[in-house]
Amino acid sequence: MADQDATEVVPLDPLREFGVAVYEACGVPTEDAAFTVEIQLTADLRGVDTHGFQRLGWYAGHLQAGRYNPTPSLEVLKETPVSHVVDGDGGIGQLIVARTMQRTIDKAKHTGLALGTLRSSNDWGMGAFYPMMAAAEGFVSFCTTTSVPTIAPFGSRTRMTGNNPMAFAAPRASGPPVVLDMALTPVALGKVMRARAEGREIPEEWGFQDLEGQPTTDPETAMSGIIPALGAVSAYKGSGLSLFMNLLAGALPGGYHSKDVNIGKRGQFLLVIDPEIFGDANTFSAAVDEMVEQIKAADPLPEVAEVFAPGEIEQRAYDERIASGAVVYPSSTVQDLRELSARMGIPLNI
Amino acid sequence: MADQDATEVVPLDPLREFGVAVYEACGVPTEDAAFTVEIQLTADLRGVDTHGFQRLGWYAGHLQAGRYNPTPSLEVLKETPVSHVVDGDGGIGQLIVARTMQRTIDKAKHTGLALGTLRSSNDWGMGAFYPMMAAAEGFVSFCTTTSVPTIAPFGSRTRMTGNNPMAFAAPRASGPPVVLDMALTPVALGKVMRARAEGREIPEEWGFQDLEGQPTTDPETAMSGIIPALGAVSAYKGSGLSLFMNLLAGALPGGYHSKDVNIGKRGQFLLVIDPEIFGDANTFSAAVDEMVEQIKAADPLPEVAEVFAPGEIEQRAYDERIASGAVVYPSSTVQDLRELSARMGIPLNI
Repeated sequence: MADQDATEVVPLDPLREFGVAVYEACGVPTEDAAFTVEIQLTADLRGVDTHGFQRLGWYAGHLQAGRYNPTPSLEVLKETPVSHVVDGDGGIGQLIVARTMQRTIDKAKHTGLALGTLRSSNDWGMGAFYPMMAAAEGFVSFCTTTSVPTIAPFGSRTRMTGNNPMAFAAPRASGPPVVLDMALTPVALGKVMRARAEGREIPEEWGFQDLEGQPTTDPETAMSGIIPALGAVSAYKGSGLSLFMNLLAGALPGGYHSKDVNIGKRGQFLLVIDPEIFGDANTFSAAVDEMVEQIKAADPLPEVAEVFAPGEIEQRAYDERIASGAVVYPSSTVQDLRELSARMGIPLNI
Repeated sequence: MADQDATEVVPLDPLREFGVAVYEACGVPTEDAAFTVEIQLTADLRGVDTHGFQRLGWYAGHLQAGRYNPTPSLEVLKETPVSHVVDGDGGIGQLIVARTMQRTIDKAKHTGLALGTLRSSNDWGMGAFYPMMAAAEGFVSFCTTTSVPTIAPFGSRTRMTGNNPMAFAAPRASGPPVVLDMALTPVALGKVMRARAEGREIPEEWGFQDLEGQPTTDPETAMSGIIPALGAVSAYKGSGLSLFMNLLAGALPGGYHSKDVNIGKRGQFLLVIDPEIFGDANTFSAAVDEMVEQIKAADPLPEVAEVFAPGEIEQRAYDERIASGAVVYPSSTVQDLRELSARMGIPLNI
C-alpha cells in the first residue's frame, strides 16, 4: 500500500500545457481552456489541491460525455445597473463563474454595489478565486454556490442541499487580501474521498454517521451516510446556512435548488461591494490591516506556533510555489493525472 | 434552589406597559419607547426569550448610566441610490437598527438592491427581526452585526471578535418567511449566562474550555475561558466567519471593529434584495415553498418527531402566544423584571 502522505513536486509549465491540451481535446476553445487552467492551477498553487487538477479528470469526463458544454454561450437574462442574472449554458464552472464575476465587478466599478447570479452552471472549484478577483480591484466580496445534495435538514437523514461553500475576501492596505473559503461541513468531502481513494479510515471526530445515526470511521460508509453540517450540537446552524445558500445561489437566479441541483444545474451568487460607498476605501483597507495585526498578535494556544489570518496559509503556499515554479501534489493525484494522460493519449511531461 | 426549568405565563399587555414606562423613565420619547418594546417583545413572542425582555434591565441600566443615548439623532453620512451609511448616535440598538433597515428597504423598493450599514450602534437583540422586515415586503435579506469580543482567532486564546450573529430571511408564497438567525458559537452565550444565573452546570458537549484549553462545565469558567466557535474540528470556519462579519458590520461602515467593539461602538450590515431583479418574484417565493415542502418531507432520524424549516419553531411559538395574548418566561426572567420594577419604582402588573 502506498504511503498515504506521500507527495510529489510537479513543475507548473508541463501541468499547464497538459491541462490546456486536455480541454482542447474535449472541444474547449484554446483561450477558454487556458483561462480555465489558470483558475484551477491557482487552487493547486494555494495548496487547495482537493479543488485543483485533482478534478481535471472529472471535468474532462463530463465534457467527453456531453454533460458539460465545451462552448457555452453566456446569456444575460435580466439586468439592472446593479444586478444581472446569467445563464451559464452548462459550461465548465470556473470559466463561466469567473466571466460572470468579471461582469459583476465591472458593474460595481460604476455603481459601488453589484450582485450577479448565475444559473445552468457547474462546480466552481475553489470558491476563494472569485471574491479574490474583486479584492484585487479593492472591493469586498461574498460569493456562494449550490452543490449536489449532501446535507440533510437538521433532524433528518434525507440529503437535500449541498455543502454550499461560502467565500469572502477583503482587500488590505499592505499585503494580500484576507480570504475565507469554507464549505458547510466540518471537513471537506474531498478529504473523505481522498481517504477512500487511499484506503484510509477517517477520524471519528470528523462527525460522520451511518444512516442509523451511528458514528463511522469508514470513508465509504461516511460518503453514503449522514454528512455532518457545521455546528456540532447546533448543527441546525450549518444545515440552515446550507438552506439559505441554496436559496441565494439556486432559487434567486431562477435556477435549480435543493434536491434538483446536479450537473449543469448549479448556481452562484456573487456580491461585490466598493468600500468607497460607505466612506473612504483607504480607511477600510487600513482597518483590515489592523484586524490582521490583532490576529497576528493574539496569544497562541499551547503547542500552536503561529496564529494565521484567514487565507494567510494559502497565500504563503502560493508565494512559495510561484517562486519555485512547481506545485506539490499527493501521489494519488499524480497517479490520477498519469491515468488521464494515458486514457486521452495526451502527453504529461512531468 | 429554584427549579431551573420553571416557567411562568405572563400576559403581554402589562409587559408592554411596563417596558414603555421603563424606557420613558430613562428619557426615551414615548413613540421610540413603544417601537423598541414591540421589537423586543417580538423576540419573546417567538420564544427567543434570551433576546427579549431578559435584557430590559441591562438596557435601562445603560440608559440611566449615560452609556446609551435615549434621544439619538440618526445621521446619514454618505449615500448612493443603492447604499447608505448611518451613524446611530449611540441609541438603543433595536430602535436605530430597525429605522436604518426601514430606510434600506425603501431604497430597495426603487433599485431592487440596497445595502445599509450602521455605526455608533448597540446590541440589536434578536437579529431575525430585521431581515423579517424585508421579507414582509417580499425581499430576501442578509444582516449581520458586530458584538463585543468573545471569539479568539483560530489557534489562539485572545478574545478578538464577537459571536457576530448572521440573520437571513426569505419570503414564501404561502406562509410566513423562512428565517435563520444564528450566532457563531455552537451555543448562545445567553444560555451560559442563564445557567450561571440559575446556578447550573453546562453540558461538556457545548465545547467551552478554560484558558489552558481544557473542557469545562462551569458556566463561570466558560464565560471567562475560551468560547468555542462554530466548526468543531474546523473551528477556523466559525472564527473566520466572525472575522468577516466583523469587517462587514464594523469596518465597512467606518466604525469600530475587532477588539474595539463595545457599547455605542457596534455596527450592522443590512442587505436587501428584491428577487424581481433576477426574474419573477412569484417564481422565487414558490421556490422557497418547494424547499420548505422538501424539508417537511425529509425522513426524520430515530426519535425525531418532526423536521422543521428554519424559523418554523419560532413562528409556531409566535402564533400561539399572539393567540393567547401572553408570553412564557423562565422564572429567572420574571424575577429580574420584578427587581427592575422595584428598583425603578415602576409598577409591573403581572
